[in-house]
Amino acid sequence: MFAEQGFHHATISQVAKEAGVADGTIYLYFKNKADILSHFFSYKTRLVFDRFRGAVDEAENAEDKLRNLIRRHLLEFQRDRNMAVVFQREALLARYVNEEYVKEITKMYLDILEEIIRLGQAEGTIRTGMPSGLVKRYILGAVNEVINTWVVTGGKHDLVEMADPLVALYFEGIGSR
Amino acid sequence: MFAEQGFHHATISQVAKEAGVADGTIYLYFKNKADILSHFFSYKTRLVFDRFRGAVDEAENAEDKLRNLIRRHLLEFQRDRNMAVVFQREALLARYVNEEYVKEITKMYLDILEEIIRLGQAEGTIRTGMPSGLVKRYILGAVNEVINTWVVTGGKHDLVEMADPLVALYFEGIGSR
Repeated sequence: MFAEQGFHHATISQVAKEAGVADGTIYLYFKNKADILSHFFSYKTRLVFDRFRGAVDEAENAEDKLRNLIRRHLLEFQRDRNMAVVFQREALLARYVNEEYVKEITKMYLDILEEIIRLGQAEGTIRTGMPSGLVKRYILGAVNEVINTWVVTGGKHDLVEMADPLVALYFEGIGSR
Repeated sequence: MFAEQGFHHATISQVAKEAGVADGTIYLYFKNKADILSHFFSYKTRLVFDRFRGAVDEAENAEDKLRNLIRRHLLEFQRDRNMAVVFQREALLARYVNEEYVKEITKMYLDILEEIIRLGQAEGTIRTGMPSGLVKRYILGAVNEVINTWVVTGGKHDLVEMADPLVALYFEGIGSR
C-alpha cells in the first residue's frame, strides 16, 4: 500500500495498480485523486464513528465512556495501519486546505468529548470551570500524538494498551497533589 | 507568503519571487526546495530552542519551568504565523518521510520535558510511576493541538493566554478528585 511513500505522492496509475484495475476504471468511479481520498474518508469515517458511538454508549459513566472511546480509537487505528497513515497524514494536510469532511470528523469527535465532559460534570467526576474548547484539544491532542508516534515508529508497539494510562493522565494529570 | 497554499505546493520560481531574487540565485544557495526547507528548519530551530532553553532555565521549579516552556512555545508561534504554518504542516509531513531534522527537533523537545518531569519528581510535585514516554506525548500532543487549531482557524485568538490553563490541565487533569 501507500504507507511508505504516501497516497499523497502516488499517481493514479499506482493507485489503479494497487487496486488491480486499469487506470480508466478508476476514472469511471472517481474524478481524481482528491475524490478517491474524499470517498475513502467518508466511508471509513462513518464506519469508525459508528463504532466510537457504540463504545461510548456501552458505558454508564463519563470516565468509562472516555476510556471506551480512547480504547476504540486506538484499536481502530492499530487494526488498520494504512487507515492510520492516511488519516494522520492526509487529514492533517487536508485540514490546512480546508477540506470540509476533515473539519466534520474533528467536530464529530469534539462533540462526543463535549458530551462526556458534560456528563462527568453533572456526575461530579469532572471539574467544572475549565475552558471547554481547551479541554477537548487537550484530550484529542494527546491521543493524536500517541497514534502519530506509533505510525512514525513503524507501528510496532501495542497501541491499545496506552488507553488506560492515557485516561488516567487525563483525569489525574501529572501533579502529585 | 506560503501560508495559504503551503510551501509544499510552491514552485522554486514562486519561492524566488517571494524572496525578490531570480530563480538562478536560489540555486546558488540551495540544491532544491527540500534543501531550503531543511535550512529554514535548522536556522529557526536553533533560534527557537535557545529561547526555550532560556525560558526553562529562568524558573526554579518544575511547574514554573513547564509553564515558561509552554508560554514561550506559544509565543514564538504566535509571533511568526508563517513559521507556525511551515512547522505544523511541513514538519508533520516530513516526520512521515523520516526527515532527520524533524526527529531531532522532537527529541530536543522531549528531552526538555524529560528533564522537567524528573525535576518535578525529585521535588515531589510530579507523580512517579507514570510511563515517561506517554507523559511526554501527552504534554507535546496538547500543545501541538492548540497550535494547530490556532493555525487552522486563521490565527485570530490569543495563543499565549492558553499556556496557564493548559499547564493547570497537565498538572491537575480534568478529574474532580
